[in-house]
Amino acid sequence: MPLKETFLSLKKAQALLALQNRSQKDAALLAAAAAINSARAAILSANAADVERAKSGGMKEALVDRLFLDDSRIDSIIEGIKTVAGLDDPAGRVKAGWKTPNGLFIEECTVPLGVAAIIYESRPNVTADAASLAYKAGCAILLRGSSAALESNRAITAAFRQGLESGGGIAEAVELAGSGDRGDVDEILSARGLVDVVLPRGGHDLIRRVVENARVPVIETGEGNCHIFADASADIPAAVDIIENAKVQKPGACNAVETVLVHRDIISALMPALAARLAGRVELRCDAASKAAVSKAGVPAGLVLKDASEADWAEEFLDYILAVKTVDSTEQAIEHINRWGTRNSEAILTNDMKNAETFTQKVDAACVYTNASTRFTDGGVFGFGAELGISTQKFHARGPMGLDALTTTKYRISGQGHIRGRE
Amino acid sequence: MPLKETFLSLKKAQALLALQNRSQKDAALLAAAAAINSARAAILSANAADVERAKSGGMKEALVDRLFLDDSRIDSIIEGIKTVAGLDDPAGRVKAGWKTPNGLFIEECTVPLGVAAIIYESRPNVTADAASLAYKAGCAILLRGSSAALESNRAITAAFRQGLESGGGIAEAVELAGSGDRGDVDEILSARGLVDVVLPRGGHDLIRRVVENARVPVIETGEGNCHIFADASADIPAAVDIIENAKVQKPGACNAVETVLVHRDIISALMPALAARLAGRVELRCDAASKAAVSKAGVPAGLVLKDASEADWAEEFLDYILAVKTVDSTEQAIEHINRWGTRNSEAILTNDMKNAETFTQKVDAACVYTNASTRFTDGGVFGFGAELGISTQKFHARGPMGLDALTTTKYRISGQGHIRGRE
Repeated sequence: MPLKETFLSLKKAQALLALQNRSQKDAALLAAAAAINSARAAILSANAADVERAKSGGMKEALVDRLFLDDSRIDSIIEGIKTVAGLDDPAGRVKAGWKTPNGLFIEECTVPLGVAAIIYESRPNVTADAASLAYKAGCAILLRGSSAALESNRAITAAFRQGLESGGGIAEAVELAGSGDRGDVDEILSARGLVDVVLPRGGHDLIRRVVENARVPVIETGEGNCHIFADASADIPAAVDIIENAKVQKPGACNAVETVLVHRDIISALMPALAARLAGRVELRCDAASKAAVSKAGVPAGLVLKDASEADWAEEFLDYILAVKTVDSTEQAIEHINRWGTRNSEAILTNDMKNAETFTQKVDAACVYTNASTRFTDGGVFGFGAELGISTQKFHARGPMGLDALTTTKYRISGQGHIRGRE
Repeated sequence: MPLKETFLSLKKAQALLALQNRSQKDAALLAAAAAINSARAAILSANAADVERAKSGGMKEALVDRLFLDDSRIDSIIEGIKTVAGLDDPAGRVKAGWKTPNGLFIEECTVPLGVAAIIYESRPNVTADAASLAYKAGCAILLRGSSAALESNRAITAAFRQGLESGGGIAEAVELAGSGDRGDVDEILSARGLVDVVLPRGGHDLIRRVVENARVPVIETGEGNCHIFADASADIPAAVDIIENAKVQKPGACNAVETVLVHRDIISALMPALAARLAGRVELRCDAASKAAVSKAGVPAGLVLKDASEADWAEEFLDYILAVKTVDSTEQAIEHINRWGTRNSEAILTNDMKNAETFTQKVDAACVYTNASTRFTDGGVFGFGAELGISTQKFHARGPMGLDALTTTKYRISGQGHIRGRE
């Protein structure tokens, strides 16, 4: 059916879902997990078809791997659903309550945001992941995966819905955008009044396209040109450990560091140690002073050492590449970060409390770290139980998102025949 | 200068403003209030010029009155600024803080949203009102008033900025879009990355235009097709008082009632009493059953009694007109409201707790009332001290907005050399 019809049916289903209490939602989710387990064969053969089509279509090996499912990956999909079932219900919380001078009693309660849509790339695990998070929050969801994963997504969605059904849940609250054609996306992005939030999940281009064309609320995620500033008082061995961790532990993550800013006073102490640690694993793109410091101490075997250009300050490498810039002050570091950063995760390494506070206050980002790796920006690490993504916008949700990002509020006001007086 | 330049200068000013503590901001605001007081003559003569131009241009009397300023209106502008100075600082609040299992300390703090823009119609008081609210929240603001009020807005903004300056504040955080030409609005609505929120304030058409064309975050306000449902157990005299209040106390307000839904069981008891109360003041547009109930009891002198058409269910009259529909159940009332309402303020009048709870849960609106007038939906009444508007959207802010709507959050994370382990 056309997406408009789908959205209207999702809206109906969401109204029913909103009335389910936590135990009802959890029972349905656990049944969905069980249904995915029993549907392994169907899911694997559907996935095999997708993989086959992708390979014969000449898809890159790395992308084919993201698409690929096996028993252990299905196990983690099932675990993911169970985890969500174990989370607190974000809806139905009373955030505040008070009595007004004239005796009205007002309560501010959390309620589901409504109908969500997720537009994502080839990982089929996102299908069950997003469906369970939305369901737990009381939101109906339209799943718009990539055409490459269409068969896999169909099999997973079918099992998930059948599970919800058998668990006494509302299967109609989860729908897959079946066609897989790009027109779907434009239809979703212009569905004013039909969709309450769109969650793009994937590469830079997908997110850009969604954010720039959306006529509906979007939560932007995933960009991360992150920095670590080692100030003059930084502990050198700790700095080397943290920078290495932030760069190599998962270079493809949005919270990985891309540029290191080093105070001129420690350039000759930090750079040789850092170069030695990263040699053979990370290419360094250095400004003049930091490059000189490495050369002076002797370039370690296997180190790729290049000159940084301004383009490197803007680049999110998502790779084993690190840009290095020398700065003369905390202010200069802050200026660089606020100019080139993407407001995701930024860190200062220091033993100077004044610099730490200045940096934390002035750097405009969702997460600002002192003496820790930027890699900790994560819903799981933060204790939210599930990762809805890392919002890089300031509106509605910012930083690692738990289920709360899928809620809004409703004021419940009760009186005893109260009428308003003349103003 | 072109608006892009203005936005960049506002961004710079906002970064400085964000560092001011509450007492600094309040001192600057009180100085701004004093400056407006000393600039009365200049403001009044500028306003006289606007009014003159408006009249010779044939502007409607009511609109000219909205534009008009006198000493008492300037007094209330000054009072408004002082009130905002007296409000708590919405920024710098620690919303939550915890230690993760690995010993990272995380704090979630409120910070100013950034650069705001307000697009509003002829009331010049909005100029000082919006400027002071934004300033208090630590946001820089672009004021885009109507060309009709340009001279008045220039005089008010000049005085306000001079006051900020003299009070040790940051005058550059408040800018007026000087040209008054419509191109400004399109430039604001497409200023991605330059403006963090746009607040439209004015009539239906202005808000529609902004919401439908914005490429930047918007907080939608002002729409209100509100309902009151009198169920079978409603107290009749209280119902008459509440409906009268919700309709006539301020018919032009977005929280005034437009349609009353009456349970069939009390139609013959409620309608004659309601008709008698509203006769000569409010035109009734009734469905068959409610009209018959009025006629049967005898149409009161001076009552305008018409047949309701479906168009009336959709209409926000903002006038002395009330639509009346008979329903057979709470479910039917909820269905009507969720179909035709604008999610602003909805009320049930009942003595049946089950109906009250069903209505409150199922009606999708920012504010749901039990046994009270819908007219209470207001930042002042709710105790927020100042009215930023009533958000009719679910994203970021919903219902009456205090200064919190102009904030976002920042996570401050501190470690002791923490690095992330392998996953």
